[in-house]
Amino acid sequence: MEQVITSTKNPRIKHLLSLQQKSSERRRAGLFLVEGQRELEHCLEAGFEVAELYVCPEFLSSDFQYSAFNTQFVNPAVYERIAYRGTTEGVVAIVRARHLQLADLQLPANPLIVVLESVEKPGNLGAILRSADAAGADAVIVCDPLTDLYNPNLIRASIGAVFTVPTVACSSSECITFLQAHGIQILTAQLQDSHPYYDTDMRRPTAIVMGTESTGLTDQWRKAATAHIRIPMLGRLDSLNVSVSSAILLYEAVRQREG
Amino acid sequence: MEQVITSTKNPRIKHLLSLQQKSSERRRAGLFLVEGQRELEHCLEAGFEVAELYVCPEFLSSDFQYSAFNTQFVNPAVYERIAYRGTTEGVVAIVRARHLQLADLQLPANPLIVVLESVEKPGNLGAILRSADAAGADAVIVCDPLTDLYNPNLIRASIGAVFTVPTVACSSSECITFLQAHGIQILTAQLQDSHPYYDTDMRRPTAIVMGTESTGLTDQWRKAATAHIRIPMLGRLDSLNVSVSSAILLYEAVRQREG
Repeated sequence: MEQVITSTKNPRIKHLLSLQQKSSERRRAGLFLVEGQRELEHCLEAGFEVAELYVCPEFLSSDFQYSAFNTQFVNPAVYERIAYRGTTEGVVAIVRARHLQLADLQLPANPLIVVLESVEKPGNLGAILRSADAAGADAVIVCDPLTDLYNPNLIRASIGAVFTVPTVACSSSECITFLQAHGIQILTAQLQDSHPYYDTDMRRPTAIVMGTESTGLTDQWRKAATAHIRIPMLGRLDSLNVSVSSAILLYEAVRQREG
Repeated sequence: MEQVITSTKNPRIKHLLSLQQKSSERRRAGLFLVEGQRELEHCLEAGFEVAELYVCPEFLSSDFQYSAFNTQFVNPAVYERIAYRGTTEGVVAIVRARHLQLADLQLPANPLIVVLESVEKPGNLGAILRSADAAGADAVIVCDPLTDLYNPNLIRASIGAVFTVPTVACSSSECITFLQAHGIQILTAQLQDSHPYYDTDMRRPTAIVMGTESTGLTDQWRKAATAHIRIPMLGRLDSLNVSVSSAILLYEAVRQREG
């Protein structure tokens, strides 16, 4: 019979909670958390390495195979404490972080890329990753990020897309140099000096560049742009959610390429 | 000098909190809450009537005119309790509910409508309303709703679009009858037996019909459909967020009509 952890004061559990709560601890340890069977499958398929697996048998939903991992068992009370979004699946893994560089990206001949400058909310970034997966985007590049890619809210909102879509963090100037060197057109989403997005040819190598909802893109992106594009606002309000805007623009590229 | 409410045990404050927390109380009283100056402006422009206004002068951000209302002043401690999303603007209003019927809708010659069947999450419904405003949709019809339209999460996520877009709650069969009687084509979003959304003509009177993320649309909608449409899923995951899907489909109608 395996030992079962029954106290949240157990040192392993305390470490796990610090990884959940502190981006500084995630960075220091080079580790992050993945919760849920589906997310963990995507994570493993992407070649990430599980350092430790925590399983609560009472909440395990099906025939999940945990014997291949360094597995610890926890009781329901401890699991409810470590689970970030509820107790439905009974699986939390500590996973080794990987930091893709621009040079690691293996792009096809006609890439479609999303670039996000300084997006603040992890939930928005996760939602954008989910749409990028759906639209078959080849990479998401996060410039000058204000959140780490392994924030639990981000992973949750992405429902695993943070693993299925190659994601790179770098500076805006590195990104601009990379895109220009690879002949990828830069379409910046902005309201001023722009034309409707559907008047733009997205059938060639394309990066769609989004800024923050509050302040938009910085000047270096506006100046580096091949074209400035906007989503027409036909109502009374003056903005769309950044993840919604990203999805509209990505699917226009899908329409032009597949339609 | 006006009286300032300094206790959350004040009967007015207790009533306000019950309106915030309980949909049954909102329904019983025919009242709901609006927080924030911008949201309140949209609400007043739409002709809603403010029953009571609660103002915290310390958090009031600019030259907001409250003299026209039945205004109560509260101190910062009470305001922090009644404010649902932070203390940035210092204004919470109790507003009289209105329930639009299908027969109240004043539609243009070539309407664009969003229909949502049994959407569960108030935040998703609010996000869809925000996109519907942006795309210039003429109405949002919520069939067999599982949330009330005056849920605080919904109003917050809509950033006021619940006031700018005519919104009706009714049954699915009433809605189908209405759309057919008005010659409005019914495009149901579904994966089975469907073709890509961009192959569909949306330049004529159109209703885009979305189901829940978990179970999709019911049979009565599938059978009533003029066409079944899908958003191609080109990645590893198998679904998009319902508010993102709605925005992609709405903006395809915008593209076809404006482009």
